[in-house]
Amino acid sequence: MSLALDPAAQDLLFREARTANAFTDEPVTDEQVQAIYELVKFAPTAFNLNSLRIVLVRSEEARERLVPHMWDANQAKTGSAPLVAILAADNEFHEELPRLLPHFPQAKDLFYTERPVREKDAGFNAALQAAYFILGVRAAGLAAGPMTGFDFAGVQKEFLDDDHTPVMIVNIGRPGSDAAFPRSPRLAFDEVVTTV
Amino acid sequence: MSLALDPAAQDLLFREARTANAFTDEPVTDEQVQAIYELVKFAPTAFNLNSLRIVLVRSEEARERLVPHMWDANQAKTGSAPLVAILAADNEFHEELPRLLPHFPQAKDLFYTERPVREKDAGFNAALQAAYFILGVRAAGLAAGPMTGFDFAGVQKEFLDDDHTPVMIVNIGRPGSDAAFPRSPRLAFDEVVTTV
Repeated sequence: MSLALDPAAQDLLFREARTANAFTDEPVTDEQVQAIYELVKFAPTAFNLNSLRIVLVRSEEARERLVPHMWDANQAKTGSAPLVAILAADNEFHEELPRLLPHFPQAKDLFYTERPVREKDAGFNAALQAAYFILGVRAAGLAAGPMTGFDFAGVQKEFLDDDHTPVMIVNIGRPGSDAAFPRSPRLAFDEVVTTV
Repeated sequence: MSLALDPAAQDLLFREARTANAFTDEPVTDEQVQAIYELVKFAPTAFNLNSLRIVLVRSEEARERLVPHMWDANQAKTGSAPLVAILAADNEFHEELPRLLPHFPQAKDLFYTERPVREKDAGFNAALQAAYFILGVRAAGLAAGPMTGFDFAGVQKEFLDDDHTPVMIVNIGRPGSDAAFPRSPRLAFDEVVTTV
């Protein structure tokens, strides 16, 4: 069974792309990040929520504030990656919703008056967008190093506010030598998929 | 700024692909779903959790049990899509973890002895994998119609069990005529990305 997506693109995004743990010194530019965003922004979210927000940690000063919040095993790679992105969920996304969902502007008041409901949907849709973002980094010919091994409360306090919840931190750059661990096994199709 | 991913692949996955609300009668085969899975299974999850599970609703009998749990606006499209997939999170994913994470088998007992912790990470990583799956459907040249507008508790009771939580339901097929709504706006780069 062949896919419509050409094999080189399959390799670039899925098969040969690997989580990188070491990077070259080549910088990642704002233009590259914008090109990634302008591509992956089109992928779907529920009610077009667009709840993902991104903080690019570019200055040395900001990097030094971030690294201590990473788990020990992640500190060296986050300290040396050309660029680090904090992905967060905007729990007040509903303020933008009438503009984002012009055919159903009442969604804001019908569904999202309560903060816990907003937090749940903001987090879920930011997770979808985080996955799109990882593939977007790969689409730019770069390697992503996504991590959830950090102090979420500490990163929120240091870089965000009460309305923004961290989702993931992603190291971004060109992979260095021996950048990836051996690939771990995946579940087989029959272990994941059942038919009724 | 040009991306490494070729423009035809960008269009197929992101730019021209749209959420479909109507489908042709062309069937979606098990071989197509397997080809999708064998591609997207390589995309990363935290600790290689692989918490996504998929129930393909293929029989008429199963379809008739599913449709009443969809919100009214989703019943017709779920009733007529060539194939419907229930995406779920396996909250007991940790049983597979020593096999999936051979270099760190102690993760199972270090992190995942408590069910609420498992539910959180199962849901988050299944959301990542749901996003990969949507793009995989598009990679197969098909259209996805992802939905969260359904009775989650009802679908869980009817098709899953206490250990599996619904994440999303996806209609799959070739788009019919006028299958997509006009595309809603996205947030601009500067509204989403800040630099520190």
